[in-house]
Amino acid sequence: MANQRQRRIGGWGFEGESYPPSRRMIQWLESATGPATHPMPTGPADPPPADGRRLPALTATVSTDPLDRLAHSRGQGLVDVIRLRCGLVPALPDGVCRPTDSDEVAAVLAQCGAAGVRVIPWGGGTSVTGGVNVIAGDTAVCTMDLERMAGMTDLDEVSGLATFGPGTTGPATEAALNAHGLTLGHFPQSWELSTVGGWVATRSSGQESLGYGRIEDMVAGLEMVAPSGVLQLPARPASAAGPDLRHLVLGSEGRFGVITSTVLRVRRRPTVTRVEAALAPSLEDGLSVIRDLVTRGVPLTMIRLSDAPETQVAMAVGLADSPVAPLVMKFLELRGLVDESCLLLYGTGGERDDVSEILQIARATIRERRGAILGKRPGAKWLHERFRHPYLRESLLDLGWATDTMETSAPWSQVPTVREGIRNAIAGALTDVGETVPVLCHVSHPYRDGASLYFTFFYRCAADPDETIHRWSAVKRAANEGLIELGVTLSHHHGVGQWHAPWLHHETGATGHRILTGLAESADPTGILNPHVLLDADDHLES
Amino acid sequence: MANQRQRRIGGWGFEGESYPPSRRMIQWLESATGPATHPMPTGPADPPPADGRRLPALTATVSTDPLDRLAHSRGQGLVDVIRLRCGLVPALPDGVCRPTDSDEVAAVLAQCGAAGVRVIPWGGGTSVTGGVNVIAGDTAVCTMDLERMAGMTDLDEVSGLATFGPGTTGPATEAALNAHGLTLGHFPQSWELSTVGGWVATRSSGQESLGYGRIEDMVAGLEMVAPSGVLQLPARPASAAGPDLRHLVLGSEGRFGVITSTVLRVRRRPTVTRVEAALAPSLEDGLSVIRDLVTRGVPLTMIRLSDAPETQVAMAVGLADSPVAPLVMKFLELRGLVDESCLLLYGTGGERDDVSEILQIARATIRERRGAILGKRPGAKWLHERFRHPYLRESLLDLGWATDTMETSAPWSQVPTVREGIRNAIAGALTDVGETVPVLCHVSHPYRDGASLYFTFFYRCAADPDETIHRWSAVKRAANEGLIELGVTLSHHHGVGQWHAPWLHHETGATGHRILTGLAESADPTGILNPHVLLDADDHLES
Repeated sequence: MANQRQRRIGGWGFEGESYPPSRRMIQWLESATGPATHPMPTGPADPPPADGRRLPALTATVSTDPLDRLAHSRGQGLVDVIRLRCGLVPALPDGVCRPTDSDEVAAVLAQCGAAGVRVIPWGGGTSVTGGVNVIAGDTAVCTMDLERMAGMTDLDEVSGLATFGPGTTGPATEAALNAHGLTLGHFPQSWELSTVGGWVATRSSGQESLGYGRIEDMVAGLEMVAPSGVLQLPARPASAAGPDLRHLVLGSEGRFGVITSTVLRVRRRPTVTRVEAALAPSLEDGLSVIRDLVTRGVPLTMIRLSDAPETQVAMAVGLADSPVAPLVMKFLELRGLVDESCLLLYGTGGERDDVSEILQIARATIRERRGAILGKRPGAKWLHERFRHPYLRESLLDLGWATDTMETSAPWSQVPTVREGIRNAIAGALTDVGETVPVLCHVSHPYRDGASLYFTFFYRCAADPDETIHRWSAVKRAANEGLIELGVTLSHHHGVGQWHAPWLHHETGATGHRILTGLAESADPTGILNPHVLLDADDHLES
Repeated sequence: MANQRQRRIGGWGFEGESYPPSRRMIQWLESATGPATHPMPTGPADPPPADGRRLPALTATVSTDPLDRLAHSRGQGLVDVIRLRCGLVPALPDGVCRPTDSDEVAAVLAQCGAAGVRVIPWGGGTSVTGGVNVIAGDTAVCTMDLERMAGMTDLDEVSGLATFGPGTTGPATEAALNAHGLTLGHFPQSWELSTVGGWVATRSSGQESLGYGRIEDMVAGLEMVAPSGVLQLPARPASAAGPDLRHLVLGSEGRFGVITSTVLRVRRRPTVTRVEAALAPSLEDGLSVIRDLVTRGVPLTMIRLSDAPETQVAMAVGLADSPVAPLVMKFLELRGLVDESCLLLYGTGGERDDVSEILQIARATIRERRGAILGKRPGAKWLHERFRHPYLRESLLDLGWATDTMETSAPWSQVPTVREGIRNAIAGALTDVGETVPVLCHVSHPYRDGASLYFTFFYRCAADPDETIHRWSAVKRAANEGLIELGVTLSHHHGVGQWHAPWLHHETGATGHRILTGLAESADPTGILNPHVLLDADDHLES
């Protein structure tokens, strides 16, 4: 399904959109890292030579157009964008095929298998873990863009079950459901570009996961076409008939097969969705508020707590727009709390009266822990801008700063330790080259037993883009090692891709890794499907 | 951990406990099937010859006592009880080993593997699908009773995570947690006997799953010892690091490995738990009430709707004890609704005021659909007796009636069709031999997208117990075939065991079945672990 707007190559989102940093944000960055001196070229640089290797005849449309191939060469990780902007993309797919149904997918897999051609399934191409990248030196590669298998193909309104093609984007999913007064409620930050198939393949989690669940909670049934056969799992409310095979497809990242259809649990669309903001006097108080609200089952759909550094930046950058902010700051100053105070965002959706009542409960809980309510404006701003935030990265690169994010999850008892440990790992990663890496963190996606921790870091670009990439890989490597050392997961919702894969065996253990390898070999005996994600032991951080 | 009370061999539960049918229940059965003429012997009959085959030396205590082996020969399915009562048990394990930790489990698996001895893991021995049965003609069998790996081994109160040994029973689990003001909230009907390891291995679901979730929602982490290695999955609130391997252990039924430890998500123990009863004027109205309450997120912990036949029996049997019942019946008679009315049970737990408020919302919803509230007594009675109901089977066998249950789940849109289809399949299964099989059904364990359907059926015992077993297998086969034909799952919470295994490939498809077979071969290359459950193609209904 063609988007009306033109996708940008070599950057997030659509042409003409941007989210430039405020003057205060730049001031903060300069004070944290020193002034930026090496703006990144805006790219995309010219694609490499047009000729790809020859693909076999395929039962699907195939494009060998260089620009199409360039647009399908990399995901949306920081290093992908740097490579695209600087003309450093090491390899393109040799063609982009666009099947229209499961039969064509199966035929293409068989044809590519017979010819030894590798196949990379492509949904929205928004991976930030190297999940769709072509590796130089591989045998011929055909990227399989699933955009022609898009849309809602079935709706069972009584059961609240809707079936979607894998290439359906977030907006298309919601549009199809909204027409029936329904919603999926799945809003990852990549929502405007990412797709149903990609969400399932990567175990995606949306910003309102507290209320609507993660994608694995929404998947009632699915179909996956693998080289060795088709796995069809009809929608089941629940079953005790053996291991749940859906959970092998969820998170399989195109390594085991191509997800061709998904039955999703949908809900009545809320009349209103509201987000509010508050300040907790400390991280500990903020965490207590979240745990309290979540374990009591207060039906919020999101809660997010920034640590003190992230709060400082948020206050400096945008929160100051709130008319109550100066009052709040005065209030906190009087109590000596400014430095430690932590921004809380909390929200819910539903009927207007229910929403008011639920937010009132949240406010009362926050006040019990000495928090200060900031009112509606900062929350409304966040809700309004939440899909625009990714554009900030592009604007910062224009100025010479690189920024990236990473995330994990931890039981509540380990959240403070994990935050501290990962902050330190990231912050110290570029000491060797004399660069400072400021780190911001927020806790979001809360569960009864813990929460995700989301880290944002910044560093200055070097004159040589390869060195800028090298700096990134040093930070990423330090972070991955920190996660393993702390015993927490490599990813809460970004997936494994190529960039976490060499560390995965630490997380699964040898037995778990052998199980996954066995599954891959059984589903895809010749190893043609997205072979460098999930299980590849090689470090592709700089590939 | 030894129970104070003596487990009964050849019947449910503990010696000295019973739940005899009321006079009216017997009248109903007589009118439905004709008078029973062949009471079942009360058993257990003498065990077969005491000598088992020789087991290798094992790094764990081994008992070869005939009574211990008899007690570990079969689960708690109807046919198991008939065999035990009539002295028709075809095979005993050759020994019962009782390891005390994971290392001993691993050592026993290695020793049995080397000697070609099969191992059947045993939790509470309450399987109703042939999940722990010894098959005649097999190589030597050692049943592994995990009762010495019981108790809470760790508690993280901040995160609400408690670690349990696999042999911990329901009451022991709750006792350990209640001491800290916590609860697991997992109350399957087998709760008094079944264990944490068994719940995980069979994807168990408790009666309050609506509020507390299924066992798979509670498992944060676990350890499984397989012949090929140990799988250790630490507790994670959530992760996107590849497929979720916990879901391969959940439902593995001892075929892939022995679950040696489980980290469970626990909650504050509710101050009160209350269940109330109402009558819906029709099944359709009752289903609408449930769907409405569930999709609105009203925080009930259970809802259960009996169909009209089950309601009639409940009214005749026990509900008539309610002081308001005569008034309700009068009210319904005036509206001509008696025959179609359906019993609703609904309940929740929490602080007293919250519980009252939630139940009031439920009552209002029921009244909107023309339902009549029956007040507190029937619900309190159900809550009080819920773990005693299984004893009814033993008393009915004493009188000459056999009874069994089966269950599935379906999306809401298919619930009426599935109910009708399975009722017909069961009801007509003994037409050949001139026997009537009354069938009762209730819908419980509701989800946003559907619910479980639970069927109870009755038939008369024959003079020859083998014929009684044969009648059972005819009903069971008809039901399994009905489930497959209707495209719904073979089990909502009883598992696959031996008795659903030959049908499983219809549910998973060939690809899914091959995946599961590959996992079994990889975890247990010599096939020593519980080899007749889950994946065995042979029909063991009469084994």
